[in-house]
Amino acid sequence: MNGDDVRSDAIEKTLDPGSDGDWASLRALGHRMVDEIFDHLQGRRNEPVWQPIPEEIRKLIAADPIPREGEGAAASYERFVTQILPFGIGNTHPRFWGWVMGTGTAEGVLAEMLAAGMNPNVGGFDDSATMVEEQVIRWMAELMGMPSGTSGLLMSGGTMANLIGLAVGRYAKAGFDVRAEGLQGGPLLRVYCSTEAHSWLKKAMDLMGMGRVALCVIGVDDHYRLQVGELREAITSDRAAGYRPVCVVATAGTVNTGATDDLSAIADLCATEDLWFHVDGAFGAAAYWSEKLRTQMRGLERADSLAFDLHKWGYMPYDIGCVLVRDAEMHEAAFATGASYLTAMERGPAAGGIRFADRGIELSRGFRALKAWMSLKALGVNAITAVIEQNVEQAQYLASLVDASSELELAAETPLNIVCFRYAGASDAQNKEVLMRLQESGAAVPSGTVLRGRFAIRVAISNHRSRREDFDLLVQTVEQIGREVIAEASSRR
Amino acid sequence: MNGDDVRSDAIEKTLDPGSDGDWASLRALGHRMVDEIFDHLQGRRNEPVWQPIPEEIRKLIAADPIPREGEGAAASYERFVTQILPFGIGNTHPRFWGWVMGTGTAEGVLAEMLAAGMNPNVGGFDDSATMVEEQVIRWMAELMGMPSGTSGLLMSGGTMANLIGLAVGRYAKAGFDVRAEGLQGGPLLRVYCSTEAHSWLKKAMDLMGMGRVALCVIGVDDHYRLQVGELREAITSDRAAGYRPVCVVATAGTVNTGATDDLSAIADLCATEDLWFHVDGAFGAAAYWSEKLRTQMRGLERADSLAFDLHKWGYMPYDIGCVLVRDAEMHEAAFATGASYLTAMERGPAAGGIRFADRGIELSRGFRALKAWMSLKALGVNAITAVIEQNVEQAQYLASLVDASSELELAAETPLNIVCFRYAGASDAQNKEVLMRLQESGAAVPSGTVLRGRFAIRVAISNHRSRREDFDLLVQTVEQIGREVIAEASSRR
Repeated sequence: MNGDDVRSDAIEKTLDPGSDGDWASLRALGHRMVDEIFDHLQGRRNEPVWQPIPEEIRKLIAADPIPREGEGAAASYERFVTQILPFGIGNTHPRFWGWVMGTGTAEGVLAEMLAAGMNPNVGGFDDSATMVEEQVIRWMAELMGMPSGTSGLLMSGGTMANLIGLAVGRYAKAGFDVRAEGLQGGPLLRVYCSTEAHSWLKKAMDLMGMGRVALCVIGVDDHYRLQVGELREAITSDRAAGYRPVCVVATAGTVNTGATDDLSAIADLCATEDLWFHVDGAFGAAAYWSEKLRTQMRGLERADSLAFDLHKWGYMPYDIGCVLVRDAEMHEAAFATGASYLTAMERGPAAGGIRFADRGIELSRGFRALKAWMSLKALGVNAITAVIEQNVEQAQYLASLVDASSELELAAETPLNIVCFRYAGASDAQNKEVLMRLQESGAAVPSGTVLRGRFAIRVAISNHRSRREDFDLLVQTVEQIGREVIAEASSRR
Repeated sequence: MNGDDVRSDAIEKTLDPGSDGDWASLRALGHRMVDEIFDHLQGRRNEPVWQPIPEEIRKLIAADPIPREGEGAAASYERFVTQILPFGIGNTHPRFWGWVMGTGTAEGVLAEMLAAGMNPNVGGFDDSATMVEEQVIRWMAELMGMPSGTSGLLMSGGTMANLIGLAVGRYAKAGFDVRAEGLQGGPLLRVYCSTEAHSWLKKAMDLMGMGRVALCVIGVDDHYRLQVGELREAITSDRAAGYRPVCVVATAGTVNTGATDDLSAIADLCATEDLWFHVDGAFGAAAYWSEKLRTQMRGLERADSLAFDLHKWGYMPYDIGCVLVRDAEMHEAAFATGASYLTAMERGPAAGGIRFADRGIELSRGFRALKAWMSLKALGVNAITAVIEQNVEQAQYLASLVDASSELELAAETPLNIVCFRYAGASDAQNKEVLMRLQESGAAVPSGTVLRGRFAIRVAISNHRSRREDFDLLVQTVEQIGREVIAEASSRR
């Protein structure tokens, strides 16, 4: 195949298969892919959670030159199967509990294929994909206890969703036209969060030009919850200093321990102080779907803006996050650029504007709404919620195992689906060594964190494939590795 | 099915199919989906490009309550086939040329399924998905004539990619630590673009807290290219006024007419003035892959940062955009949050940090790199480039048809893949009416724009399914509708 000998449909060049036979071959390959990717998911339990990429494959990938000539779908799929698929980060495995990642579902896999086949740009035209996204947003608002008429947008993940919420809040509460005038020359606009807030907020403050200096970080109580009294005092002293408080970022499910701020108290304070109440519910907000778990999330439904992921505790494939904004007009005012009267269309696919472009920064947008729609339609909210509840029960179970172990100790409370623990009597460095050996063993992948200055092994359970036996195995393996690490240290002394 | 009767794997609850038989059913459904989505693509030519959603389907979708109980994958797929798939925006059709959208490919559909099956969070761990993304970035840098060692990141689209480039530029050239200090109290940081720059820039200036006031909009010449002399003068007078110029945003392929700024001249000026040279090549940058078309893009390879989409003129499924940043250290410095020494890992999946999180705002990231990798491996760059060249030839062909028509007139030059024209002797309102009727007819979907104050029908060709006959049909149909609109206006007089 040379540069001129490209695919054609016998009339002109195209990237479609060139004949009915070629289409048939690709269909057959597609069937094989469905079978094998499902085999992969079905068999994950029997494989290592994570394994290092072998050196020869590392070299193969890194040395691969630009493919000027195509090798065909079958050949590239072979490469995927041998070089890529076995060496993922591992979050589809029943014993992956690192950071906070979701596992995805088989239905989600199929939905992504359909979305790519239909391939709409979901900018918000008069088309079915836009209707599906609007419907998912409506469902999400209702599931989160927010009123009908709540605006929203699906995006790549929690960070983007949080960023949008914060941007609307800043626009709403700055007291001047931030979009037109910019921040230079204006007062210091203060945003409040706790020491347990996720790092997205620092990045957002940077990107939004507010700077770290504008972020006021409030301490937490013994349960890692934002100290509301301290927050109130900070707002008062900021106002006295001539700063302008605009927004409080509360967290539903902190990344370290799964703590949830006192959302009702913060909502009250924001109402009193006329501040934007943003809730980062990246994974924790999904707990609101459960009647049992909702109590600790109370107040979340009062958010001016709420951000959360569906690829985490919603078990949908990457990537999908959602922001909900109570005041739909304000949401649009913060992002709309205004269509020219000359190009505004009364009929046709752009009639009524390109609505999603007016709710965020993106103009081209994929059809990630379909996997949300299809996951909910096919599986049902109740089934998803039941597994969310099971994950919380599993966290309690793991905490009880740690508690019962003479070698392990809990490093924090377990309010939700995150368990932090240590190999007792081992140093931070030794606990880190235990974690790395555990990850390298392929048996389980938790991640690590630092709590009150000390290292802890952290198990975040947003995994619908985990069983109790997996936590039994985790505890046994950590105990064994811990003993080895301690023994090695003793023998070196 | 009630709330307690959720799927289980006979041991505990899970969202996986509950038995080998259930997995087999889902495999069979997956095969059917592959067949039918490919049927859909193969048959697109024989369907309307776009059609309004029937009122009864609109109601069906809007009235659908939250699915508490799952109906199963097969039932939800039936809904997709009947309610969603036929009513898309239409960009998979050979005669869709609205805005700038890509068509996608069959291989891209399969790649998206595989990506969702593997389902990695491509934060930048030590895993194969990260290697694939790094490889795609390397290939892109080489294809764009940028040096090895160029940094980059894949993201949802051009707007996000442009935003990242601009943010790195601001950080690099502000003259103070924007991330720490914020913009308040600092000088007005000026960003320059032409009147033809895409609206992403206004939104980015808003979001980044610089405001519209910081954007200096320069006029264009007769070819819709930024007036470099005027730019030079603006920079000089801005400096004299105490403002701080930081970045010039040049465009490779404007959204209105496909014009490309004099990138070499702007690169020279940026070098002289120590400004960040950002190129928005949303769709146009793909022309750089072609030796024939590269001449008009010269200077693009000198960009400090370059943003472009692969779901537009790269024909990959939504969504995928890319930013390239020449100075890799600066790229990371603009976004990295710094890992705690306590959590930094020497081994395991997070050894070496989470690198992509340090190159942008997102932390959770999907495996969009796979569709780029697989499209390039399977189809080859040459085949893609040949269709890019064909699209430009088709634009020339359409322009020649318009030129030869006594009823139509060109509204702008046709330097690349965009053709703007009008029904001659008709008003702006009448031309808009022609466009809307054309869209409603299902025969073709161009969009509209405004050029020097006058409305024009705009045909943007980033479609690998279009043939010359499609442009013949377009011209005939526009002529016919134009005659009808004019006749109706006369009869109403």
